[in-house]
Amino acid sequence: MTDLKPKNPDFDAVVRNSFGRQSFMDFIGADLTQLSAGSCDISVPHQAGLTQQHGFFHGGLVSALADSAAGYAAFSLFPANSTVLTVDFKVNFLNPSEGKLLIAKAQVISMDRKICHVNGDVFAMKDGREIHCLTGIFTMMCLEGRSDSANLGRAKVAS
Amino acid sequence: MTDLKPKNPDFDAVVRNSFGRQSFMDFIGADLTQLSAGSCDISVPHQAGLTQQHGFFHGGLVSALADSAAGYAAFSLFPANSTVLTVDFKVNFLNPSEGKLLIAKAQVISMDRKICHVNGDVFAMKDGREIHCLTGIFTMMCLEGRSDSANLGRAKVAS
Amino acid sequence: MTDLKPKNPDFDAVVRNSFGRQSFMDFIGADLTQLSAGSCDISVPHQAGLTQQHGFFHGGLVSALADSAAGYAAFSLFPANSTVLTVDFKVNFLNPSEGKLLIAKAQVISMDRKICHVNGDVFAMKDGREIHCLTGIFTMMCLEGRSDSANLGRAKVAS
Amino acid sequence: MTDLKPKNPDFDAVVRNSFGRQSFMDFIGADLTQLSAGSCDISVPHQAGLTQQHGFFHGGLVSALADSAAGYAAFSLFPANSTVLTVDFKVNFLNPSEGKLLIAKAQVISMDRKICHVNGDVFAMKDGREIHCLTGIFTMMCLEGRSDSANLGRAKVAS
Repeated sequence: MTDLKPKNPDFDAVVRNSFGRQSFMDFIGADLTQLSAGSCDISVPHQAGLTQQHGFFHGGLVSALADSAAGYAAFSLFPANSTVLTVDFKVNFLNPSEGKLLIAKAQVISMDRKICHVNGDVFAMKDGREIHCLTGIFTMMCLEGRSDSANLGRAKVAS
Repeated sequence: MTDLKPKNPDFDAVVRNSFGRQSFMDFIGADLTQLSAGSCDISVPHQAGLTQQHGFFHGGLVSALADSAAGYAAFSLFPANSTVLTVDFKVNFLNPSEGKLLIAKAQVISMDRKICHVNGDVFAMKDGREIHCLTGIFTMMCLEGRSDSANLGRAKVAS
Repeated sequence: MTDLKPKNPDFDAVVRNSFGRQSFMDFIGADLTQLSAGSCDISVPHQAGLTQQHGFFHGGLVSALADSAAGYAAFSLFPANSTVLTVDFKVNFLNPSEGKLLIAKAQVISMDRKICHVNGDVFAMKDGREIHCLTGIFTMMCLEGRSDSANLGRAKVAS
Repeated sequence: MTDLKPKNPDFDAVVRNSFGRQSFMDFIGADLTQLSAGSCDISVPHQAGLTQQHGFFHGGLVSALADSAAGYAAFSLFPANSTVLTVDFKVNFLNPSEGKLLIAKAQVISMDRKICHVNGDVFAMKDGREIHCLTGIFTMMCLEGRSDSANLGRAKVAS
């Protein structure tokens, strides 16, 4: 029922270009480590600036990573000349985010013309094993006719 | 029905001390700008490193700010010798996060012995007006008998 | 920023007609008890068939009531010749749903052309006081050019 | 990391007994059709009383079914002399719930001493194929020392 065939043959370049313009991903040291139609992984190595009061990765950082991965998993299926918006998301924290590396893995569940539902999970790599830190569901929207690179200025984006 | 009287008379110092140890809040330039029993505001000024591909604050950053404010709104009501964990949260993005300053405002809705439900909203200050960017509900947990400052190491935190 | 002016001058009749065709609302004995532009209340009296194992209103029933109220709060703002779909929702259970009457109250937070974010709360009336049982956020979608009354058959609705 | 071994050897009888006391499940005609440690399916056949304005299963009914399945998937892992509460849940609607039978399938993701995170999905059986209608994440809580069968009366349950 769900068609995960990409509509834009250049989706790989388009997504990586957009990721490169997300200053926040660069700021936290994140890399886009896997991309295919409807699927995206983003990783970030541990550094002191990314932690909460117990020394673990900050939960907000963990969910931000999942949000970016989910957005790009969705965006990979969108047509040319469109952009992606997070409508909402829900995340559950399963285990402390402790380890040397975080990996967010997102996979599209269902894609309609406008709305894309995406699963996102985050794993911490610690002592050679994967700890499942977060699971979530992300609702993404396709805005056709809007460039992903243009600054949308004062325009109401989510309309 | 909900008792928002603080159990710890030193809650102000305890919360501010914990906030001071959240390296991620320092990393992004955030300040705890208001704190009372069951309520907390956290602000962050705009800087290039915090943006997504359109130049707005990154949605993941916006939700991270709300998560921290919600956690500290809850923590302000907890007894001494306890710590706070985010069990899960849900956020809806209402408008683009465009402006010079983001303010996350959290308010406890309901507090039981273990579970605390918190509303969180984020506003962007732009040209002298407040833009409502995000609204969310946060489920926080009180872990009694655990120090907020100790590194919990390998121990399963959410148990 | 949010325009809560109704686009359809006949919204009251349109919403009440749609509510009347929700067999499930009739099945559980629910009434639409308040309707204005962007706001809707739905109530249901206690009966044995609506309870869970402790004799309280079933949580799923409580959230179903909030979902209907949220959908009609949104629908009241939609143009003629459209219908409403729940994209997703999140609900937090604050207190047991014990009492003689449940009232779900929904209020639109933000409305774009397609997406409508709605707050929903449910209260139980018990011994003359209101118990706040549930709070939630509902993401509703406006489908223009689709009749609310037509059976959509095999067509993919959420596209 | 997640221990899905049941703590109560009688979990099958305990869960089925609790399900039998959920009047709402009987009211809508639901059956518990599969149960194992950490997993539960609940089904409901189509009937006119369960529909929304387009003749599909009502979304609130669909999420109620998933909530019950998720609660019992969690409860199957709880110790004797305990009960289960839904703390919160989030559901995304993927496709219209059209068909002769709905099946909610729940699977525990992670279980701590108090908090249990559960995935829930609902499928509609239509013309011999499964339509994926809903996916969600459910946060359940274990209340030890509380009987699942006692009426909890005025006591605050979620404390």
